[in-house]
Amino acid sequence: MTILKGIIAYSVTPFRENGQVDLSLFRRLTERLVQSGADAIAPLGSTGVLPYLNDAEREALITATAEQVNGRLPILAGVSHLTTERTIHHARFAEKAGVDAVMIIPMSYWKLSEEEIYRHYEAVAGSISIPVMAYNNPATGGLDMAPALLKRLLQIPNVCMIKESTGDIQRMHSLRSELGEDVAFYNGSNPLALAAFAAGAKGWCTAAPNLVPELNRSLYEAVQQDRLEEARSLFYRQSELLRFIVAKGLPRAIQAGLELQGVEAGHLRSPLQPLSPAEKQELKQILENCGAL
Amino acid sequence: MTILKGIIAYSVTPFRENGQVDLSLFRRLTERLVQSGADAIAPLGSTGVLPYLNDAEREALITATAEQVNGRLPILAGVSHLTTERTIHHARFAEKAGVDAVMIIPMSYWKLSEEEIYRHYEAVAGSISIPVMAYNNPATGGLDMAPALLKRLLQIPNVCMIKESTGDIQRMHSLRSELGEDVAFYNGSNPLALAAFAAGAKGWCTAAPNLVPELNRSLYEAVQQDRLEEARSLFYRQSELLRFIVAKGLPRAIQAGLELQGVEAGHLRSPLQPLSPAEKQELKQILENCGAL
Amino acid sequence: MTILKGIIAYSVTPFRENGQVDLSLFRRLTERLVQSGADAIAPLGSTGVLPYLNDAEREALITATAEQVNGRLPILAGVSHLTTERTIHHARFAEKAGVDAVMIIPMSYWKLSEEEIYRHYEAVAGSISIPVMAYNNPATGGLDMAPALLKRLLQIPNVCMIKESTGDIQRMHSLRSELGEDVAFYNGSNPLALAAFAAGAKGWCTAAPNLVPELNRSLYEAVQQDRLEEARSLFYRQSELLRFIVAKGLPRAIQAGLELQGVEAGHLRSPLQPLSPAEKQELKQILENCGAL
Amino acid sequence: MTILKGIIAYSVTPFRENGQVDLSLFRRLTERLVQSGADAIAPLGSTGVLPYLNDAEREALITATAEQVNGRLPILAGVSHLTTERTIHHARFAEKAGVDAVMIIPMSYWKLSEEEIYRHYEAVAGSISIPVMAYNNPATGGLDMAPALLKRLLQIPNVCMIKESTGDIQRMHSLRSELGEDVAFYNGSNPLALAAFAAGAKGWCTAAPNLVPELNRSLYEAVQQDRLEEARSLFYRQSELLRFIVAKGLPRAIQAGLELQGVEAGHLRSPLQPLSPAEKQELKQILENCGAL
Repeated sequence: MTILKGIIAYSVTPFRENGQVDLSLFRRLTERLVQSGADAIAPLGSTGVLPYLNDAEREALITATAEQVNGRLPILAGVSHLTTERTIHHARFAEKAGVDAVMIIPMSYWKLSEEEIYRHYEAVAGSISIPVMAYNNPATGGLDMAPALLKRLLQIPNVCMIKESTGDIQRMHSLRSELGEDVAFYNGSNPLALAAFAAGAKGWCTAAPNLVPELNRSLYEAVQQDRLEEARSLFYRQSELLRFIVAKGLPRAIQAGLELQGVEAGHLRSPLQPLSPAEKQELKQILENCGAL
Repeated sequence: MTILKGIIAYSVTPFRENGQVDLSLFRRLTERLVQSGADAIAPLGSTGVLPYLNDAEREALITATAEQVNGRLPILAGVSHLTTERTIHHARFAEKAGVDAVMIIPMSYWKLSEEEIYRHYEAVAGSISIPVMAYNNPATGGLDMAPALLKRLLQIPNVCMIKESTGDIQRMHSLRSELGEDVAFYNGSNPLALAAFAAGAKGWCTAAPNLVPELNRSLYEAVQQDRLEEARSLFYRQSELLRFIVAKGLPRAIQAGLELQGVEAGHLRSPLQPLSPAEKQELKQILENCGAL
Repeated sequence: MTILKGIIAYSVTPFRENGQVDLSLFRRLTERLVQSGADAIAPLGSTGVLPYLNDAEREALITATAEQVNGRLPILAGVSHLTTERTIHHARFAEKAGVDAVMIIPMSYWKLSEEEIYRHYEAVAGSISIPVMAYNNPATGGLDMAPALLKRLLQIPNVCMIKESTGDIQRMHSLRSELGEDVAFYNGSNPLALAAFAAGAKGWCTAAPNLVPELNRSLYEAVQQDRLEEARSLFYRQSELLRFIVAKGLPRAIQAGLELQGVEAGHLRSPLQPLSPAEKQELKQILENCGAL
Repeated sequence: MTILKGIIAYSVTPFRENGQVDLSLFRRLTERLVQSGADAIAPLGSTGVLPYLNDAEREALITATAEQVNGRLPILAGVSHLTTERTIHHARFAEKAGVDAVMIIPMSYWKLSEEEIYRHYEAVAGSISIPVMAYNNPATGGLDMAPALLKRLLQIPNVCMIKESTGDIQRMHSLRSELGEDVAFYNGSNPLALAAFAAGAKGWCTAAPNLVPELNRSLYEAVQQDRLEEARSLFYRQSELLRFIVAKGLPRAIQAGLELQGVEAGHLRSPLQPLSPAEKQELKQILENCGAL
C-alpha cells in the first residue's frame, strides 16, 4: 500500500464573494502547491473547511484536485462526515476519482463511544480499497482517540496511517512505543514539527507550504540527514509562523498570508471571517521575519 | 414576543431500519409529548440529532411537528448549521412553517471568535421575525459562550432567550446577576433541574418528558409554589435518571427508555449505536426506582 | 456525635507588620464572629491560612479560639498537614484543647492515591475521639476526592461529615443520592450557597460572616422555612460578594472588606499581598450594593 | 555565573522505619549518583520530598550533600517553601553551606497572582548571591507560570535558569523563541527528554540516573554530537521507564526501582506509600526491557 511521507501539503478552499466555491482559483492554488516541492497534496482537510461544504461541493473539489494533480503526486483526500452513510459515500467517490488515500476524522456532536468510533472506521474502510489515515484532532473534531484505540483501528486492513494533532508530543511517543518502529504516524500539529520528526514521524500534514514551502521542506530534509542542529535552527525560523496559523485558525491565517504574498486567495465562508487588520499586520511581521515576504 | 416557560419537551428523531427518518413514528411520539403535559415542544434539538440530518429531512420534521401540534402548544425548533447561509435558510423555513421560536447553537469545527458568533446570530436573527433562543452547550457544539457574550447577543432585537447547558450553576447566577430579574434564561442541563429553578430559570429544556413527564412537571410546580422541600424530594426521585440520560447521550438513552416502557422508538442513525444490554439493564433499574416502569 | 449545621463561620488569621501572628487581634475578630449569629466557629481553615503557619502558631491559635469561644458555640478546627504524622499531632492537640470537631483536607504535593488518602484519614481519625469532617477542595489542596472515595471515608467511625468545595453542585447531588437523606454534607463553595441548601446541605462553611453575617443567616433561615422565593432574593443580594471573595482569595478579600468596614484586620503573610487599590474600590462598591457599608 | 548543563541528577530522601530521615543512607545514595556520571547533584527537589520535611531536616540534608559531594560536582538545592520568609531562610542556609545554585518553585495553597510570584522571587533572590533556577511545575506546585512571567523573572539579576516541567514541549519552544538562543532552560519532564534536547534544552533535571544513568547520559551525548537517529533509538529504550516513574510519582517509583536493583532505599514518609506488588512487577519488567536489571 502507498505509504505517504515527508511534506503533505493541505489545500485551502477559496470562495467567491457570493459564497460559492471558486473552483478555478482552487485549481491554481493546487498547482502552486504541487510545484512548491510538496510530497503529497491533501484537499478537503480542516484547512479546506471540509465540514462547511455540501456534498456537491466536496465532489467537485475532489474531481478538480485529481484532474489538476494528474498523477504527479499522491493525493490524500478528506472524506469525513458526521454520519457513517455519508462518509462511505464520499470515500467511494474519492476512490473512483483516483485519490490515493483518504483521511477520516471521527466528527462528533454527540460524543462517540470507542465502539461507535471503531464501527464507523470499519464500515467506511470496508467500503473502499485504498488506504485510510485515521486522524485524531480533538480541538476540531471534538473526540480524542487514545493510543489504545488508534492501535485497535490499525487492525482494520486498510487503516494503515495515523495522523496525530493533539499537540501533545507524548502521544506520538506512546504510539511509537506501543506500535513499534514501523508504525506510520504523521504529525498534524504544526508547532510540533521538530519534536514529531525527532520522535520518528513519517510525515508532516501541514497547510504551511501554502506560505513557506522551502522552510518546511528544509526542516524535513535536515532531520532525514541526521543534522539536528540545523533542523533546530530551521524550526525556530518558522516556529512563530506555525504557532500563529494554528492560533488564528488555518483557513483564516493561510488566506491572509497568501494575500500578503500577493497571491489571490478568495473569500471565506461565513461564519468564518477574515483576520482583523491588527492580526494581518502581525502576520506580515512574522512572514518578514522568516523571509517569506 | 412569546416567552416560553415551564417544561419544554424535546422530541427524538426516530429512523427506520434502512436509515431513513420515520416521519410517521415521529408524529406519534410528538403527539405523546403534547399529551404528556409539556408546556412547549422542541423538535430538532440535540435530542433530535439535528446535525445528523440533511436539509430535506429537517424540513420534513419541522412541517410534521407544525401539523401534528397544530397550535395546541408553542413550538421551539432547532435550526442550527455550521454555515450562516444554511442557518438562515432553516430559520426562514421554520418561521414560514408556523414555528413560534427558533433555537440556535453556534456549531464549531473551527473555533469561532466572539465577533464571528455575534455576526452569525445577527445575520440569522435579522432574517426572521420570530424570537430566537441562544443556546450554549460546549459539550456538543464545541464553543463556550461566556455570560458577557450572551449579554451582547441579547441586544439583537429578537434574540430574547438564553439556554444554558454547561452544567455549571454559577453561569446561571452570573446571567441573572448581570442581566437582571427579567432575563429569560432556560436550563438545558438535566442534572441541574432543581438548582436552575432555584436560581430563577424560566423553563427547563429537557428530553426527560419522553420518559417521566409527571415527575418533570411536578418538580416545576413545586418550585412555582414555593414548596422547596417537596421540590427537593421530587428532584432526588428523578436525579439518577437525569444523570443517566445525559451520561449516555440523550438520543441513545431516550430510545432505550421508550423501548423499556413498551413504546416503539425506531432506530438510531450511525455512527450512533444503541445502548449495550448492560446499560439497558441499568436504565431499567433506574426507571423502576422512579416509578416509571 | 455533634453534628454541625447552619452557618459555620471561618476565622481569618491576622499578622502584625513584623510577620508574627497577632493573637490579640485574632481574639477580637473571633469574638466578633461569635456575636454575629454564627452557628459554629472554624479557625485554621483556608481562610485562616493554615498551611502558612508553623506548629507553634497553629497551637496558639487553637488555644486562643477555645478560650475566647469558651463553650458558647461549637468549634471546628483545621488540622491538615502534608504529613500524616503532623496531622495526627495537630488533631490530638485540638482534641485536648476542647475543640468539638476537626476538619481535614488531604494536602498534596505528590498526588495521593485513593488508598493513601484513605489510610491518612484512618490514621488521623483513629488517633482522636472527636468527629472528623472530610474536606474536598481541589483548587487549594490539589486533590479531588470523588463521591465514591468520600463514601468510603464515611466508613471510618468518627469521619461523619463531608465538606464539598469543588463548586460543582452535581457533586452534592451525587453525595446525597448515593449516601441517602441523612448524610451530613456541607457546602464550602460560597457561590453555591443557594443551590447547596436547595440540594439539602446541612450547613455552609463560609468566611462571609466576617462581612455580611445577617445576609448569610437570613438565607439559611429562608431555606429552612421553605421560603424559596425569598431565599433566591437574599442569595442574589449577596452573590456578587460571594463570587468576589472566592475569586480574589478569601484571606485577601476578607482583610480588605474588614478594613472597608472600619474593622482592624492586620496584615497578610508573604507571599500573599493585599488587594490592589482598584480591587478594593470594586469591593467597596459590592459591599455598598449589598448594604454592608 | 555557573550555568548547569547536561544530566542534573535528583536525590531521593530515604527514611527509617520510625519515620526519621536516614542521613547515612542518604549519603551513600548521593555518592552513588556522583559516581554515576551525572553533571550535577540536586537534593531537596520533588524527588527528595522537600515539602514533607521540616526545617531541621532540610538543613541536615543540605549539609550532608555539601559534605558528601565535596566539590566534585555542582550542587543545585531546592529551598522552596509556602512562605517567603522560610524560603529566604533556606536559600541563605544553602548558600552558606556551599551550594552552587538554588531551585525555587512557587508553592501554592492560595493561588498566587503574577505580582505575588514576582515579589516572592525578588525577595528570595535578593537575599542571596548564588544563581536561582525558577521552576515551573503546576502538577506538583499548583501554579503555572506562563512564558511571559518566566521572562519577567529572568530580569531579576541572579534568576538565570528556568526549569520547565509542564510536559508541554510548546512551552520550551516559546521560551526559546521569546528569550533567544542563549536562554538557559532545562527540562524537568522526563517523558520529554528527547523533544526538549531537540528544542535546545541546556540540561535534563531528572531522578532517572538513580536507576539508568548510562541511558540518560548516552541520550544527552548523542544529541550533543548531532546524532539524531541514535538519540531517538536511545530515547525509546528508556521512554517506558520515564513515563512510569512520572506516572507513579518519583519518590515511590525510584524507591521501588532501587530495591529491584538490590540497592537499599529506605522507607517513604506517610501519607506516601510504596508501590503495590503489581506495580513493582510492572517496573521490574520495564527495567529488564531497558537492560537495567
